[in-house]
This record gives sequence, C-alpha cells and structure tokens, in this order.
Amino acid sequence: MILARIYVCLKPNVLDPQGKAVTNSLRQLGYASVAETRVSKYIEISFDTSNREQAKLETERICRDLLANPNTEHYSFTLEDKEGGKA
Amino acid sequence: MILARIYVCLKPNVLDPQGKAVTNSLRQLGYASVAETRVSKYIEISFDTSNREQAKLETERICRDLLANPNTEHYSFTLEDKEGGKA
Repeated sequence: MILARIYVCLKPNVLDPQGKAVTNSLRQLGYASVAETRVSKYIEISFDTSNREQAKLETERICRDLLANPNTEHYSFTLEDKEGGKA
Repeated sequence: MILARIYVCLKPNVLDPQGKAVTNSLRQLGYASVAETRVSKYIEISFDTSNREQAKLETERICRDLLANPNTEHYSFTLEDKEGGKA
C-alpha cells in the first residue's frame, strides 16, 4: 500500500478569493497580524500496490489530467509506504 | 514573518463524497490500483510577526473557531519562519 500526499495550490500570481475571504474574516475577528491566507487542496490517494515507480507515474498523470488545472494551479506530491488495510 | 501550514481533514470515519467521486473517476479512467481518495483543505496563513508563540496560539484558535468543523473534521499545523515580504 502506497500513500500519495498531493498538494494542489493556486499559482502565486492567481487571485485566491476564498483565501481573501478568510483573511477578511480573521481581521474582523481581531487577528491583526494575519498578512495573507491561501486556500488549497490536499488530497490523499491510497494505491493498492507496492510498486513505488508505478505509483509515482500514476500520481503524476492523475495530477496533470484530473486534479490540477494547469492554467491556474500547480501541484506537488510525496509518496510513502503505508501499513496494509483501508485508511 | 511566520508561515502556518494548516491541514483540515475529515475524520477517518466520516464519509468523503468528494473523495469517493475522485476514486470513481480514476477507476473509470483505468487507474485500477487506486484504493481510496480523501480530499482535504490545505491552508497557508502568513503572520506579520516574529513571535512564534503568538503565531502558534492564534493558529490554534483560528483552526478551532473558523477553519475546522469540530464535528466532522480534525486539523493539524506546522509553523515555519519565512523571508519577509508577501508570499
């Protein structure tokens, strides 16, 4: 079992309205030191295989073709071995 | 400048319909080894302070009061020092 931890984040120069909304809420709640907030996706995929190379290749393809919008987002991921069974 | 990296994830026993949808899509696309997918939030907050203790306290409070739903989600975070200027 291999676990892929995937981060899909907006590119730095893309406006993040959700993050902006969180920043504004926090300021109104009195958190004056909050400078900026960025909201992104964090996705965990469990692969039913022990072939790390295959998991890496598939994760790369999955990010490119399904999870991230290449126009506005970038992605990164790490892989780790996981004890068998469902997460 | 301190950067808080926050993860807000559904508790393990809570159904994740978005993750389920991604798993189904991936299976239909031929990724037979995908066992499970969980979709979570990843939030970065930049604090305009160098007081780590204050940043930690505020991040804890922000997670509890604004970012996570205590009934269905749990959160975790790490703090790191960041070069000055906007992210």
